[in-house]
Amino acid sequence: MDENNGDIETAERPPQLDLYEPLIGDKERAVANGNGNTNHLAMIGAKVSPIESLDYELIENDLFRQDWRSRKRVEILQYVAVKWTFVFLVGVLTGLVAFGNNLAVENIAGLKFVHSVNLMNSDRFVLAFLVYAGANMLLVMLAAMLCVYIGPSAAGSGIPEVKAYLNGVDTPHVFSLNTLVVKILGSIGSVAGGLIVGKEGPLVHVGACIASLLGQGGSVRYGMTWKWLRYLKNDRDRRDLVTCGAAAGVAAAFRAPVGGVLFALEEVTSWWRGPLLWRAFFTTAVVAVIMRTGIVWCEHGHCGLSGEGGLIIFDISGKPDNYGLQELLPVAILGVVGGVLGSLFNQTNGKIIMWSNGWLKKKGKFAKIAQAVIVAFITSVCSFGLPWMATCRPCPMTVGIPSETKCPTYDLTRNFKSFHCPANTYNDLAGLFFNTNDDTIRNLFSKGTNGEFEFSSLVIYLVTAYSLALLTYGIAVPSGLFVPAILCGATYGRIMGMMMKQIYGTGPMDEGVYALLGAASFLGGSMRMTVSLCIIILELTNNLSLLPLIMLVLLISKTVGDGFNDAVYHLHVKIKEIPFLEAHPLPFMSHLTARDGITRPLVWFSAIERVGTILDVLRSTKHNAFPVIDDNFDGQNDECPVFCGLVLRSHLLVLLRKKQFTERRERGGLKQGGSFSSTEFAKPGSGKGVKINDIDLDIAEEEMFLDLHPVTNTSPYTVLETMSLAKAYTLFRQLGLRHLCVMPKSSSEGQPILGLLTRHDFIPNSLLNRFPSLRQLNYQKVHAFPSFSSSSQP
Amino acid sequence: MDENNGDIETAERPPQLDLYEPLIGDKERAVANGNGNTNHLAMIGAKVSPIESLDYELIENDLFRQDWRSRKRVEILQYVAVKWTFVFLVGVLTGLVAFGNNLAVENIAGLKFVHSVNLMNSDRFVLAFLVYAGANMLLVMLAAMLCVYIGPSAAGSGIPEVKAYLNGVDTPHVFSLNTLVVKILGSIGSVAGGLIVGKEGPLVHVGACIASLLGQGGSVRYGMTWKWLRYLKNDRDRRDLVTCGAAAGVAAAFRAPVGGVLFALEEVTSWWRGPLLWRAFFTTAVVAVIMRTGIVWCEHGHCGLSGEGGLIIFDISGKPDNYGLQELLPVAILGVVGGVLGSLFNQTNGKIIMWSNGWLKKKGKFAKIAQAVIVAFITSVCSFGLPWMATCRPCPMTVGIPSETKCPTYDLTRNFKSFHCPANTYNDLAGLFFNTNDDTIRNLFSKGTNGEFEFSSLVIYLVTAYSLALLTYGIAVPSGLFVPAILCGATYGRIMGMMMKQIYGTGPMDEGVYALLGAASFLGGSMRMTVSLCIIILELTNNLSLLPLIMLVLLISKTVGDGFNDAVYHLHVKIKEIPFLEAHPLPFMSHLTARDGITRPLVWFSAIERVGTILDVLRSTKHNAFPVIDDNFDGQNDECPVFCGLVLRSHLLVLLRKKQFTERRERGGLKQGGSFSSTEFAKPGSGKGVKINDIDLDIAEEEMFLDLHPVTNTSPYTVLETMSLAKAYTLFRQLGLRHLCVMPKSSSEGQPILGLLTRHDFIPNSLLNRFPSLRQLNYQKVHAFPSFSSSSQP
Repeated sequence: MDENNGDIETAERPPQLDLYEPLIGDKERAVANGNGNTNHLAMIGAKVSPIESLDYELIENDLFRQDWRSRKRVEILQYVAVKWTFVFLVGVLTGLVAFGNNLAVENIAGLKFVHSVNLMNSDRFVLAFLVYAGANMLLVMLAAMLCVYIGPSAAGSGIPEVKAYLNGVDTPHVFSLNTLVVKILGSIGSVAGGLIVGKEGPLVHVGACIASLLGQGGSVRYGMTWKWLRYLKNDRDRRDLVTCGAAAGVAAAFRAPVGGVLFALEEVTSWWRGPLLWRAFFTTAVVAVIMRTGIVWCEHGHCGLSGEGGLIIFDISGKPDNYGLQELLPVAILGVVGGVLGSLFNQTNGKIIMWSNGWLKKKGKFAKIAQAVIVAFITSVCSFGLPWMATCRPCPMTVGIPSETKCPTYDLTRNFKSFHCPANTYNDLAGLFFNTNDDTIRNLFSKGTNGEFEFSSLVIYLVTAYSLALLTYGIAVPSGLFVPAILCGATYGRIMGMMMKQIYGTGPMDEGVYALLGAASFLGGSMRMTVSLCIIILELTNNLSLLPLIMLVLLISKTVGDGFNDAVYHLHVKIKEIPFLEAHPLPFMSHLTARDGITRPLVWFSAIERVGTILDVLRSTKHNAFPVIDDNFDGQNDECPVFCGLVLRSHLLVLLRKKQFTERRERGGLKQGGSFSSTEFAKPGSGKGVKINDIDLDIAEEEMFLDLHPVTNTSPYTVLETMSLAKAYTLFRQLGLRHLCVMPKSSSEGQPILGLLTRHDFIPNSLLNRFPSLRQLNYQKVHAFPSFSSSSQP
Repeated sequence: MDENNGDIETAERPPQLDLYEPLIGDKERAVANGNGNTNHLAMIGAKVSPIESLDYELIENDLFRQDWRSRKRVEILQYVAVKWTFVFLVGVLTGLVAFGNNLAVENIAGLKFVHSVNLMNSDRFVLAFLVYAGANMLLVMLAAMLCVYIGPSAAGSGIPEVKAYLNGVDTPHVFSLNTLVVKILGSIGSVAGGLIVGKEGPLVHVGACIASLLGQGGSVRYGMTWKWLRYLKNDRDRRDLVTCGAAAGVAAAFRAPVGGVLFALEEVTSWWRGPLLWRAFFTTAVVAVIMRTGIVWCEHGHCGLSGEGGLIIFDISGKPDNYGLQELLPVAILGVVGGVLGSLFNQTNGKIIMWSNGWLKKKGKFAKIAQAVIVAFITSVCSFGLPWMATCRPCPMTVGIPSETKCPTYDLTRNFKSFHCPANTYNDLAGLFFNTNDDTIRNLFSKGTNGEFEFSSLVIYLVTAYSLALLTYGIAVPSGLFVPAILCGATYGRIMGMMMKQIYGTGPMDEGVYALLGAASFLGGSMRMTVSLCIIILELTNNLSLLPLIMLVLLISKTVGDGFNDAVYHLHVKIKEIPFLEAHPLPFMSHLTARDGITRPLVWFSAIERVGTILDVLRSTKHNAFPVIDDNFDGQNDECPVFCGLVLRSHLLVLLRKKQFTERRERGGLKQGGSFSSTEFAKPGSGKGVKINDIDLDIAEEEMFLDLHPVTNTSPYTVLETMSLAKAYTLFRQLGLRHLCVMPKSSSEGQPILGLLTRHDFIPNSLLNRFPSLRQLNYQKVHAFPSFSSSSQP
């Protein structure tokens, strides 16, 4: 075995005649080399986990070609059938989970409210508070315990983790059965427990989990093996399934099938293909049918306390809204406010999480549960206590029923809450606080209710909800961000609407419409999506006439927010230290060459290699791929070594376990591997597959030889050593690679390959650590101009 | 200069021990080599034009690095400002054009109808026909003459051409000022002239034209040079602008801003980036604001005969439509019918165009105009003559006005047409035929009008419209396909609705809803889009409750259509023989290696080359890039040649014109090129730039030397010769390359590069011609299973 430690020649460079002086001198290059420090840990949910890269490349070796050519037409049909069946199943299961989740939340929360309201009606206010707060704390505690003890990966929204997976980062347990169960139950607990959280993010994770579990290709342990499943045993098909799952999650959460597809496309995935768009569309169509069937079923009274709401959650359609030029200014202001408050939210929440992560790491699991319960207690105190600050207001007279003694919708969950108020009056603050989040949003969005809320009540609610949302997102329960964002945004939107009324008298636009635009602005300012948010809001509210205004608000709030910091999910990917590859390289990378990126010494195998050598290398390194070089053992006239390709660690392990070695250094060809079925080499699910400890060879076997030709991927992607790292990055990222070979520009060094680049070699921070002089460029801040990093390089 | 003709060694192969036998034998390889036949012509609009490839790669040479590093922060801001200003302008201009187009069509067509109806009311039917048919023929003739004599590239919808451009195919004139003017005027003529065409496709082309003209970086000829414009002088930024233009076109045509973005994303572009999504969204938001402002302006009566229609063209909102399980079967049937009729349309229309193209090529320009006029005449005869077959039907009594003597909307453009019928009766067939296309669609979609049309009238209209649409798309006028598709689809949808009524009695779903679903099914069956069609239909009709049904119909009709043939625009790309690169390689390509793809002998330059040699090569070849090899002229210890990178023909031409040569073979560095500004090397717009004939050197100059180092792109993308052509294709396509270098796996052949691959080397038909044995695989038909070709290879 040979090692090439990738030293850069420093003496042979020609004298620099160029005006163009490279930024990186030879000296810095020499120092940087060997400075490679790669971090293989990231925060997944509430737990630090090891991570691996996924491999989306086609491994084209002889075995693959043989297998692929021998596939009959019927097998291709089977493959297509399996894929479509699975996305169908993803749609059905995600739809059912979302429906069940909805049912559970509305019934549990409904029960909680029924009991406390009954107690309040008999003036037993302390007991009512104890029931209310106790129920909330119990629900949240259960959710937190599930998260901490059974499925730590289920904490948080899960969208950053799904994003990371679809970017090519593989983490154990993030899509396991435990995680799925905890995510479903925990999400019910945290939402029903009255926290300012939504079920939308968790449902995205649930959809992805379901998809990933289906895509594991069955389970040998549980006897769930089926010949057809073998087609899905690769990372590409799993990626596609998980993408469809994420789309299904959003579609189910918002009952927004098209919005779901676009959310997956714009926010979650890193790669996208035409056929996938169609498959995702199919999945969300299935979700829509499931949801609609469920709703129709509920309308027949099967669903207990669950509301009767239709397919459109916050329907505010009706006569088209009119607006003129005088509305442009308040709308623009809303956009700016949303951008500022949204980015402030991202920043503050990030800081809180970083700080509490550090603190919790020392205190252990119990502290995490305590934190969640404390947050639940504070939330309960706020939502039960603050409505007492509101004055009781007389009910508006219902048209046509002047003698009606109750407020129009004076029941459990609708606009008007009596709380502690006497008959014929209502407590507007209780209508916001003492309600499920969905009903609060419905109240805020409701049209024709101008003046229903006091200005002061809205301000109190805004401050409280914003602060609670900051505290809540990050505790160890499943928690989504959409609902908090909509709550805050709708509140200040309505405040803006009231202020406009003050200024203009009766303007044409309703306060409910302002609330909707406010919600859009906060979503845009925090999440920074455009098309998908637009469609989701449209599908949530069914009011197309507002489309130009919604687009305007989203554009402004995104622009303002981008001026301050990153989108919230993106920020969380960074906080979790996930080695995420952005869509485009940072500009400083064009000052480095592919050769500069190499951090690890080259470890290669001879095309026909001693078994013992292979075993030693596999034990002593953690590399996942090794170049195979034909060093011309037979001494023919060919003098130069030939670069054959790459061989994967996993394939070597399969070969070693089969022990079909040859006595002499000779080509065995596929005959040697003839007894292998291609499925043995298919990539197993995360964390499965042959381990190095499974291999047990005696000394005689170690002295034998193994012909690597049949398993060598002869089509590895390569770059020239002089290629700028920025362009190598583009190649690596666009094609979803795991390994990229760096080739010499001349054969004078005798080595046909210089080294391998992997994901960690492209992470900006580790590059800047190795080449500190590039920091002075400070190009990184330019992300404020969002399109700069992508195409301003020309 | 050396030539390596890329022969494949046949003797040195080791004996085949493998079970895996390559499909391509050495013999076939030897024959195939040199068989390379590349076609550089394609049909653009109505004219055969030469084509070039666009270059989206960053050319990273010393000059570029120097320029880029010297850019100040303010210049980056300028660049960002220019980009956003331009997309803003694209939105404004496209919106204005669309609005003007609308106004012109409605006024011209309105005038035509006013005169003929007046004549008919005074029973002068023959004269009425002459006025009607004469106006139609005149309008169409003018449109055809403009197309044939001034802007041949403007014929047809233009979407295939825009698709081709965004795929990387550059054609002169496709986005010229002539084309723009002809497209606008011609589209008015053909739509106002009563043809069964829409203005949607042409507006996409118009938007792209506007964007491309703005992106030319000013014009030296017209003195429109501005320092800031230099940032846009590259194909990447032009591509982005054109994408936004296409989105703006759809947005303006349908008043569907989100649908426009998605249409550009799903159908038109081949590459897409996150920031682009946002910019396109901004563009379409601007379009929406412009359109809305125009509509408000029209409401004040400034627009003559133009209808008062709001932002939603075919608004059918109102109370949510109810549907149950019994509607699933008719909806599924509609999907199948749409798939069959849509794919039949594609097939037949393609055949008609191929046949008439061949015929017209011989007959010349006059024949094209004659063809258009004849089609206009036939259309006029049908739309004036066929309504006579209908029986006059009594007007339905308007509720509340029982004594009303006129039909409810008995005016020029609405549902009920009197035509030749006496008072209190109407001619239902005239309501379809004797109307603008938009009003016909509105009639078909209208709800609460069950039984307004006779079954027989609808059948007559369906057959006529379908046949006329087949004849019309392909004649030498600007013509869009959306409107014909909606017309046909809505008609059979309504027929289906009437049949359902017959079977079920009064079902809950309206005939107008069936018409909408029918239109969706025809669009899906012909154009094969999913998400974008769904959103466009939603934005056209503002009826969200139908979303699940629309999704279902689109999925079924696309599936059925895909079983028969390609999507219509894709088919036209093929008919036009545009070298379009699909998103994914065909499976047979994995049996070929990158080396097999090389068709042209390698032509390379020494790093410091004789001027005369460069000139000779540029004159004798048409290659656009040449490898630069440092063959070690100074005889140092380095013995192997070094592959430095690629140099572009256009950069060489600039260098040659500057005549800054050196006497001896020595490195000049950037000092030599110091007097060049980077803008001289920026890529000029299509068809501009230095030509080989501009270079005039004397014999002494030809004997001097030129150092190519400063202009050599040291970061060319490379692949190993053993890489399968399928994977090389993926690389080439995903990164939008123009040239791809093939590197040897071993240096024993002495050459550090084997050859270059270009777009034409990846075209399946030319590969199959060179390797006929691959035809037997017949993998191509597998496209019927849409996801197969993309990821079933694993």
